[in-house]
Amino acid sequence: MELGKHYTEKVQVNHIVLLSIVPAVGLLGLGFSLYLAHSTLKNDPGSPEVSGISKAIQAGATTFMRREYQVMGVTALLFALFLALVLNVYVAFTFLIGVVCATLSGFIGMSIATRANGRVTWAARSGLSQALYVAFSGGSVMGMAVVSLGALGISGVYLLFRLLPATPDPLTVITGYSMGASFVAIFIRIGGGIFTKAADMGADLVGKVEMGIPEDDPRNAAVIADQVGDNVGDVAGLGSDLNQSYTDTIVTSLLIGAAAQTTGGLYLGEKGVIFPLLLVAMGSLVSTLGILIVRWLARKEVICPEVLLRVGLLTSGVLSLVGILLLSYFYLGELGPFYAATAGLLVGVLIGLNTEYYTYRRPLRTIILASEAGAANNIIAGLAVGLESTVFSMILLGLGMIAAHHFAGLYGISLSGLGMLSILGINLSMDAYGPIADNAGGIAQMSNQPARIREITDRLDAVGNTTAAIGKSFAASATAAAALSLLTAYSEAARIENLDIREPRVMAGLLIGGVLPALFSALVIQSVDRTAQLIVVEVRRQFRQIRGLMAGTNPPDYGRCVDIATRGALSRLVLPCLLAIGIPFVVVFTLGPEALAGLLAGCIVSGIFLALFMANAGGAWDNAKKRIEAGEAGGKGSLAHRASVIGDTVGDPLKDTAGPTLDILVQLMATVSLAFVPLFERILR
Amino acid sequence: MELGKHYTEKVQVNHIVLLSIVPAVGLLGLGFSLYLAHSTLKNDPGSPEVSGISKAIQAGATTFMRREYQVMGVTALLFALFLALVLNVYVAFTFLIGVVCATLSGFIGMSIATRANGRVTWAARSGLSQALYVAFSGGSVMGMAVVSLGALGISGVYLLFRLLPATPDPLTVITGYSMGASFVAIFIRIGGGIFTKAADMGADLVGKVEMGIPEDDPRNAAVIADQVGDNVGDVAGLGSDLNQSYTDTIVTSLLIGAAAQTTGGLYLGEKGVIFPLLLVAMGSLVSTLGILIVRWLARKEVICPEVLLRVGLLTSGVLSLVGILLLSYFYLGELGPFYAATAGLLVGVLIGLNTEYYTYRRPLRTIILASEAGAANNIIAGLAVGLESTVFSMILLGLGMIAAHHFAGLYGISLSGLGMLSILGINLSMDAYGPIADNAGGIAQMSNQPARIREITDRLDAVGNTTAAIGKSFAASATAAAALSLLTAYSEAARIENLDIREPRVMAGLLIGGVLPALFSALVIQSVDRTAQLIVVEVRRQFRQIRGLMAGTNPPDYGRCVDIATRGALSRLVLPCLLAIGIPFVVVFTLGPEALAGLLAGCIVSGIFLALFMANAGGAWDNAKKRIEAGEAGGKGSLAHRASVIGDTVGDPLKDTAGPTLDILVQLMATVSLAFVPLFERILR
Repeated sequence: MELGKHYTEKVQVNHIVLLSIVPAVGLLGLGFSLYLAHSTLKNDPGSPEVSGISKAIQAGATTFMRREYQVMGVTALLFALFLALVLNVYVAFTFLIGVVCATLSGFIGMSIATRANGRVTWAARSGLSQALYVAFSGGSVMGMAVVSLGALGISGVYLLFRLLPATPDPLTVITGYSMGASFVAIFIRIGGGIFTKAADMGADLVGKVEMGIPEDDPRNAAVIADQVGDNVGDVAGLGSDLNQSYTDTIVTSLLIGAAAQTTGGLYLGEKGVIFPLLLVAMGSLVSTLGILIVRWLARKEVICPEVLLRVGLLTSGVLSLVGILLLSYFYLGELGPFYAATAGLLVGVLIGLNTEYYTYRRPLRTIILASEAGAANNIIAGLAVGLESTVFSMILLGLGMIAAHHFAGLYGISLSGLGMLSILGINLSMDAYGPIADNAGGIAQMSNQPARIREITDRLDAVGNTTAAIGKSFAASATAAAALSLLTAYSEAARIENLDIREPRVMAGLLIGGVLPALFSALVIQSVDRTAQLIVVEVRRQFRQIRGLMAGTNPPDYGRCVDIATRGALSRLVLPCLLAIGIPFVVVFTLGPEALAGLLAGCIVSGIFLALFMANAGGAWDNAKKRIEAGEAGGKGSLAHRASVIGDTVGDPLKDTAGPTLDILVQLMATVSLAFVPLFERILR
Repeated sequence: MELGKHYTEKVQVNHIVLLSIVPAVGLLGLGFSLYLAHSTLKNDPGSPEVSGISKAIQAGATTFMRREYQVMGVTALLFALFLALVLNVYVAFTFLIGVVCATLSGFIGMSIATRANGRVTWAARSGLSQALYVAFSGGSVMGMAVVSLGALGISGVYLLFRLLPATPDPLTVITGYSMGASFVAIFIRIGGGIFTKAADMGADLVGKVEMGIPEDDPRNAAVIADQVGDNVGDVAGLGSDLNQSYTDTIVTSLLIGAAAQTTGGLYLGEKGVIFPLLLVAMGSLVSTLGILIVRWLARKEVICPEVLLRVGLLTSGVLSLVGILLLSYFYLGELGPFYAATAGLLVGVLIGLNTEYYTYRRPLRTIILASEAGAANNIIAGLAVGLESTVFSMILLGLGMIAAHHFAGLYGISLSGLGMLSILGINLSMDAYGPIADNAGGIAQMSNQPARIREITDRLDAVGNTTAAIGKSFAASATAAAALSLLTAYSEAARIENLDIREPRVMAGLLIGGVLPALFSALVIQSVDRTAQLIVVEVRRQFRQIRGLMAGTNPPDYGRCVDIATRGALSRLVLPCLLAIGIPFVVVFTLGPEALAGLLAGCIVSGIFLALFMANAGGAWDNAKKRIEAGEAGGKGSLAHRASVIGDTVGDPLKDTAGPTLDILVQLMATVSLAFVPLFERILR
């Protein structure tokens, strides 16, 4: 990692000019994101009833996020202080920049999402295309915000330390930025995840199961909390999750690109650092183009939403590949990096298709059929589908890694991650579109819109389910590439020569790391369960004590449920966060740096496996229920339907809380390990 | 591994004399096993009704096992032919010896277990102690048969090739024996596992859920199949499972003991080979003593069954430690191996206690409480308990490995497994006692015995549940030690120098290996589910078509259900078996020997994790249901009870079919990899 300030004057200028393109593109993207926000807010917020519900959701989400930011802000400042003390102030500084960028992108995305929901409901009056147009525009604010703030932040930090005299080499402090992104991700994802599923389960357990009223019924006191959850969990949470993967992938590409010997023997010099940043800028432009195409096609009203989103994804993918090819050929002068990035993109797409197959195609039949025999069979069938769904994905990840390494060495592995995430902008737009459509459906139900409106929002929601499941498997694959690169970077930084799995410390690390995802899943699931219990008690209390609530003459007190979910989520996210940050320290000081490397590897293997399993099993249960509700296996009210509701409820905390947490956990532990190598060395040697 | 026939004449004679002790002790143990069988059969088989049901179970079990042996026999002969062709006839020969020993121990154990069940029911008339005495005696037949046939077979094969001129070094062919044990294990465990849970689920789904008749009601056509399942799955299956771990542990100890440099730098020579065999002989004697003590105490009627079994286990453990200490000190002249074996035994005991905690103590409360909120919460709580239960165990396994390696190098790791399994004789006796007690309870129910009798069998059954869960976690821990040793032996044999996890092939292997347990679990769970569906259809048909069945005037056709379960199990065990044997070949020829080593490591990590998770989650659900049935959370018939029945049903295929299969899978793949190294090398180089 001997790079940075050791170039001749002439070369430096060229590099700096090229590098300046990246933050410029970042600013451009941010501008586009603001334009999209403006374009979304221009739409009619709808009747007072619709906009009122939307405002209630907005208020709940804002309250929750504000309190979460308070807790996070204080902790981040403390952690920055710790960083300044044990490492140096520069790392503390980049950490805070990372925290700010991650927080900002999530905040922008969620603010617009909570304002878009009612506008989608209202736009549905003008038809499917208009509703899709508004929902997708709302979602793409988040997509572009994450991508452009990432480009801006990382290249900004790099340029700053590159140009300012008397500061350290940018590559020695950039891991701080990465840690900032991970820090925000684990807070927002765990907090949002607990909130959303506790509210969802609490609402369903009393509403659907005990009182027999429909989902999203306004008489249910937890229904606003449930809608708030969609935003804080699925919009802000997924955004911070993918922002982390994105950041980690870029940062490890820089680190490994700077190390000469790793790129299949080829010495790239600072080109190895600039290339990934150029890729990021190119990806941002391609996503912009993709988003414009989708919006244009939606306006044209020529194709159905399922196909439309696919066309957008495909176009961006192809454009991105062309971009990587051109950059590799003309800038690097060799095609190895292009092949490596292509391998990554291909693996990502295939894993997405695999997810779609297991959560929407033939395997659903086995779950639906099993539901006819009862809840236990529904659960067992779902578990089996979930387990099976991971097989092809993990094999693909393994083979993709070998291919990427073949074409460009260790650099290739991080580039494969970058290839996968090059179209993150449009990908994330579609992910964020899902919960907006879901919210729009909820608002339609709560404000008693005509059936025609609800049909449209239901259709948008169903498409959103697909994109959400694909988004989750994409996040898991990106995590694998990022975490493997981080593991490599850590062990290079710690100058570990031998990581032979026959070494007992490495093997012990593998075993211990292999079980950590189970520990975190258990913690998070229990948190959801307990918070949901509190909400159940409150909703029951309101039905009992508020007169005229069941008759619909008096409204419930929505704020109380939001408050309970908020307090539950905030109080329960501290332990997992502390564990994720603390475990690397404990392991390195008791069992040594080799054991820590083994632990990271074990954690990657079982973390990715469990994340994929939980996402896919949860998705399959959810869709099996939807298909039964649409009329299969006896339809609503049948034994099969009751069984499928149980399966869906079981899947919820798995797919939306525990599973996504694992992606973040794996990367956070690896980032912490990498960033604290100087401290480990000082103490151990 | 250059050993065997290269000693001086004098040393050889001493070794041979010592070695001959081992088969002699094996024969003695076999004699004791036969004595125990005789002592069990001496008891009164009971009234015609009781003995008639027992005979029906016996007949069903025999039919199933005969058909399973036919399939297995033909496949084994074909595989032996394959071995003779691609490796050599000696390996094929030891393979068949391994198959015969494993089959014989399972057959003896199950024959007595299916005859002991009714005798236990009848003995319960004379009180708890007498019933316990008969059940434990019946179970110990299996325990002693496995231990002594293991000692006899392995030492016999070793001596034979050691003494016969013009034959290869015994250590080059002994892996054949190991493969034989694994081969039988995967057949019996998967076949028996599918049979038992398909029958169980089928019986419960129609009987308890649809018709509302109690468990083990004689009007249920699947009830005999269910009882047969306990024997073919839990007795023969668990026996073959632990026989495999036992065999693998011994064989790897021999292989690694023979390799000089591995034992912490100390050259042990052939002593390194003889020491594990002496340990085995000592363990057999200690188990004999332990069994005699338990029987004696049971006769004395002084302590309750829970305590009694613990006393037996504890005494044997302490005696075994003393034996290992004496052998290490006087035979090897150093204590490193003793410490390593002690570490293993301690880890095994602690993991057993951890299992007991999670499946019987405080965590059960969370499942019981969650059950009050419905089935989904019961399932989620059980999943969380199961996940959490694996954490401490995996960490212990990792630390135990480091400790064992510290005291005696790689040899220490295999010795730690041997330490764990040194008391297998008495351990397995208690495991086999469980299903006998369970069967006795079923027979009591079916033959309408007075409540007093059923109370006694229920109490014995509850104790059996504890021992079964502990036995399963013991099996998983032993698997870890055996599989790690096999992985080492494989990579040494394949002369792999570098297994660095940063190597992309190794890492890809880890990822792919890490998902194989999921693949096998999915396959096996689906097999159970589909076979259960067929049984459901048949039981429903009989209730519909046999007149007077519900009224109790006409008996159902039990044979049909046994037949359906048999056909289901046999037709569905071929694919997993083929995959387990075939995958190492595919990987080694496409991705290379390093990837195969990585695959084995990944498979160990996630295989042990999933096996522990499934065993403990399943055990916890089962016991939560039992506690609710005993009156907690509203007792039988409450909402919590219905929820807990669903949880128990979900746990069944996990804990009794998929989980145990994983132990076997991990070891079988490792054994196959090790045994076929000569073939791999011939083709690859």
